[in-house]
Amino acid sequence: MKSYRKELWFDIPSRRAFINITPRVEECLRESGVKEGLVLVNAMHITASVFINDNESGLHQDYEDWLEELAPHDPIGHYRHNLTGEDNGDAHLKRQIMGRESVVAVTNSQLDFGPWEQIFYGEFDGRRRKRVLVKIIGE
Amino acid sequence: MKSYRKELWFDIPSRRAFINITPRVEECLRESGVKEGLVLVNAMHITASVFINDNESGLHQDYEDWLEELAPHDPIGHYRHNLTGEDNGDAHLKRQIMGRESVVAVTNSQLDFGPWEQIFYGEFDGRRRKRVLVKIIGE
Amino acid sequence: MKSYRKELWFDIPSRRAFINITPRVEECLRESGVKEGLVLVNAMHITASVFINDNESGLHQDYEDWLEELAPHDPIGHYRHNLTGEDNGDAHLKRQIMGRESVVAVTNSQLDFGPWEQIFYGEFDGRRRKRVLVKIIGE
Repeated sequence: MKSYRKELWFDIPSRRAFINITPRVEECLRESGVKEGLVLVNAMHITASVFINDNESGLHQDYEDWLEELAPHDPIGHYRHNLTGEDNGDAHLKRQIMGRESVVAVTNSQLDFGPWEQIFYGEFDGRRRKRVLVKIIGE
Repeated sequence: MKSYRKELWFDIPSRRAFINITPRVEECLRESGVKEGLVLVNAMHITASVFINDNESGLHQDYEDWLEELAPHDPIGHYRHNLTGEDNGDAHLKRQIMGRESVVAVTNSQLDFGPWEQIFYGEFDGRRRKRVLVKIIGE
Repeated sequence: MKSYRKELWFDIPSRRAFINITPRVEECLRESGVKEGLVLVNAMHITASVFINDNESGLHQDYEDWLEELAPHDPIGHYRHNLTGEDNGDAHLKRQIMGRESVVAVTNSQLDFGPWEQIFYGEFDGRRRKRVLVKIIGE
């Protein structure tokens, strides 16, 4: 069994953003030499997500608006978590909707994707350095 | 390490539906010959879900109503994604709530499930051919 | 390939609770002897979750309030599922938001976690014995 690990680093200048990380995960897969197996891609921070959906900017704006409706950032005092001095209570909730991780099949040395699947890093509390883990196992 | 791959195809005549795919995944597991390992089952389309819950029609109607509340289909113009000519903006949001994939343990050649766990395909933008990927790795 | 399996049992005296199970999963990992691989941790019941987030009690109260807003327990008659005689329709919805499972990388015999990641059991219909499955594969 082969095993591969890499951290992808991000320093998003805004509070929230969606970044297409598919090319970086594909590069990891090439480096790993794994032909058949599984790739785990997960946010290593608890106010960020890794998810798979469409690379379409209108949809990303829809996600932004919808998440802000379901778990608004303001008023900050609405979240008990923010009593710790943080202002990111909403980010912990948004991340639950969008998910922590994606697991992707590897077949013939490729990410085994449907026609529109792309992997995104979802940042909900940016403006500092944060990481995504790529772990690949297989043969 | 053994590795197995199969696509399950669906052509749902309605816009939305929940389909129990447990027997089809069990058949894949038998074909794979894997005794100990992991099964990844994921929607290959970004307006559909694979999730694990109860095989109970009342609950499925509850999901339908709840998802329609959280991310209504109408008015179509509410979603920027629909400016691309699509009318499935809501389906991309519903899929995030229900999830893209499930990972299931394989123990003694069986899906290692609790008493009520069943795997469902959740369709949110049907009336065309779409796929689910079953990938099994193990020994 | 090594393979390991253990059930963790819970009997939560209240309807809802969040329990940090990280130490128990770490103990499983030590027992498994796996150095490189993947850990799957999943609720075996469909009204419970396994998820990764912050070990902060204010945040857990925020989750409790937010989930109750998104999928209120009362009125019980609001859910068709409760026509079966159950009163846990809401619990099946809450579990979809928080997720069934987490997959965690194993690197150098450790859970490969970011600085604040902890694994939680989320109970939404307690007061009876329920289980979580820990499955580890790797080498």
